[in-house]
Amino acid sequence: MERFICEFCKKLLPPDPFNTFCPDCGEPLLVHRRQKKRKINSDDHHPLQRYVDFLPFSSFNPRLDMGEGNTPLIPCLNLSKALNLPRLFAKNEMINPTGSFKDRGTRISVQKAVRMEISRIGTVSTGNMAVSTAAYGARAGLETNVLIKSDVSREKLISAGLHGARLLQVKGHYGDLFRKSFKSGIKHGIYFMNSVDPYRIEGYKITGFEIYDELKANRPLYVFIPVSSGGHLIGLIKAYRELQGNVPLPHFPVFIGVQAQGSSPLAKAYREKSSRVKPIRKVQTVAQSITNPDPPGGNLALKWIRDHHGAVISVSDRSILEAQGRLASQEGLFALPAAAAALAGVIQWRKRNPFPKHARLVVVLTGTGLKNIKAIDSSHLDLQSCSLEELDQALA
Amino acid sequence: MERFICEFCKKLLPPDPFNTFCPDCGEPLLVHRRQKKRKINSDDHHPLQRYVDFLPFSSFNPRLDMGEGNTPLIPCLNLSKALNLPRLFAKNEMINPTGSFKDRGTRISVQKAVRMEISRIGTVSTGNMAVSTAAYGARAGLETNVLIKSDVSREKLISAGLHGARLLQVKGHYGDLFRKSFKSGIKHGIYFMNSVDPYRIEGYKITGFEIYDELKANRPLYVFIPVSSGGHLIGLIKAYRELQGNVPLPHFPVFIGVQAQGSSPLAKAYREKSSRVKPIRKVQTVAQSITNPDPPGGNLALKWIRDHHGAVISVSDRSILEAQGRLASQEGLFALPAAAAALAGVIQWRKRNPFPKHARLVVVLTGTGLKNIKAIDSSHLDLQSCSLEELDQALA
Repeated sequence: MERFICEFCKKLLPPDPFNTFCPDCGEPLLVHRRQKKRKINSDDHHPLQRYVDFLPFSSFNPRLDMGEGNTPLIPCLNLSKALNLPRLFAKNEMINPTGSFKDRGTRISVQKAVRMEISRIGTVSTGNMAVSTAAYGARAGLETNVLIKSDVSREKLISAGLHGARLLQVKGHYGDLFRKSFKSGIKHGIYFMNSVDPYRIEGYKITGFEIYDELKANRPLYVFIPVSSGGHLIGLIKAYRELQGNVPLPHFPVFIGVQAQGSSPLAKAYREKSSRVKPIRKVQTVAQSITNPDPPGGNLALKWIRDHHGAVISVSDRSILEAQGRLASQEGLFALPAAAAALAGVIQWRKRNPFPKHARLVVVLTGTGLKNIKAIDSSHLDLQSCSLEELDQALA
Repeated sequence: MERFICEFCKKLLPPDPFNTFCPDCGEPLLVHRRQKKRKINSDDHHPLQRYVDFLPFSSFNPRLDMGEGNTPLIPCLNLSKALNLPRLFAKNEMINPTGSFKDRGTRISVQKAVRMEISRIGTVSTGNMAVSTAAYGARAGLETNVLIKSDVSREKLISAGLHGARLLQVKGHYGDLFRKSFKSGIKHGIYFMNSVDPYRIEGYKITGFEIYDELKANRPLYVFIPVSSGGHLIGLIKAYRELQGNVPLPHFPVFIGVQAQGSSPLAKAYREKSSRVKPIRKVQTVAQSITNPDPPGGNLALKWIRDHHGAVISVSDRSILEAQGRLASQEGLFALPAAAAALAGVIQWRKRNPFPKHARLVVVLTGTGLKNIKAIDSSHLDLQSCSLEELDQALA
């Protein structure tokens, strides 16, 4: 059994899912990887078995599977051409079982719960994680408690509820709620698999392995990824950190975290060259899924971003919606505003930082646009109506 | 180039995407398979290359791919146990790129359009096909014309529109609109890839091949599939008809088509032992995606169902919503009411027809529940609200 580690204190702790943070410095704990040679099982197409050498379990309960992972890296030739970019790819996390990247992490955390015979799980969520945790919890026969903000979209609320989860809409600051959930969880035996849960992050790593498998590391690679609590970004960087020494890696990817201007505590800390992310009180953006005002993985994400020469930037709501429209109308990809922020980030970054000509760019599309229909400005749509008799003329 | 065939007249015709129906009897045309030994390329994991021997093209333009197909066959052990059923599996078509099985067919039809340098495509749709055709059309750089009914859900309308499709909401009977679209299409050079398009049906076959690959044919297999226009069902049966003679197939699956009581012209014809499906005038059901009142593939679907000892049944809206809730709360699968109808069909069928003990059951989950949130009765959800101070008590 591999232990937990705090990347700041380098303290090692027993792997207890009820301990998500370092008791000394309060930073998130990660699953510690002992030094040993690891390899990708290239012949195995099951995403967990393929990368099992890098994961905290040596076997996986197939009953929990719903087909998460193995998502395609879609070439976006139309966008590359329209925006005059090097070759751009979209990592399509929207086709995970509940429509977001969260499923990869939930799959691993729920596996941990089942192994430890924990019967009550929970999560604090802006929506995507609520749905994911409720779905996997239902499949595993666990009682799932979902703590949600009051502004969560109806699509996410209803789908989480239909999975039989107990939904608690909690008034108050999201950051406070996040911290309080762990305390209540320990007290009542509820494993809160929140955004920086060490096992959840292990699941996110697989996205990084899949990108590596597809593109290798022979050219400069830029990965643009929306950032809220920091867990997803930490997972992707952790994947490449663990690949180092085990596979040929001449180019470590440049990770660019993207936040919405109206909720950008990490981008602010990055800009101000601070090592600590300060919580913000108010968030205001159309990208509702990336609005954690007090990101628990913020300091670690920032440290790793700097260690590996990446950056965190912020983009306007207008550019996010424009990117959402471009992805849908030029590549057939209907992404949440929060996901489209990754493409808005590419456009913004390029203004000041030209890409090397032979670079490869990846935008991680974190969740499906179906989950927040209200965000879309439908006034631009080409919608007409006619009678059956007028059809011929309308199509002329 | 393989030709088209009418399964009723056995007439062979040149493969022209502007001819969807037999000029003599009006039944849908299919891609004709000449007799020759075919095999599954088991080493290839790309769903089109794996089954290329059975498909009408020998190569595929990878630029059109969005990761459709290769969907998991998910064991539903909780449902099997709760309902005392033989081993039940869900074929999860909800994780196709636009959230429904339609993508498999659209992928092939759009490939045909691109090959023939057709620049205008269209579809008539209750919603899922609209979104799918708009998305693949956008990716291929085609002008997409979507003719929709006036009651299409907002989720489907907006996502189709965001892909840049031209949306025409046409008043009038759906069956009349369906037929008229072909005439207008020929006149204006628009390839209407509707529900029984011969190439679309070729794409649906792959679902059948994947089920075969996973379960083989060593035991009785029952496939429950929602039926509207008949195209999907025809595709799945065609897959197994083409597998015959090429792979070991001791048991041809029993296909059970499932319709909603409020829109069940095929089930009625089956019950009445008629060989012709009569159009109905009014449809009334929560399963809005399976409401074609004049199914163009109805007679062929019925013929093949009978040839292979299957059946078509109808289920109540109440049983559909109950099945939707069961799939979500017991297996973590959030399906459209139209998709959940397949499970309602299993429950209904079993009342009069006990399954052989060693049988395997498959329900084809055709589309994601995210596409019709309004259909859900949210009064049953376990939703409470509290303040941060009350959280501890609420979780106790």
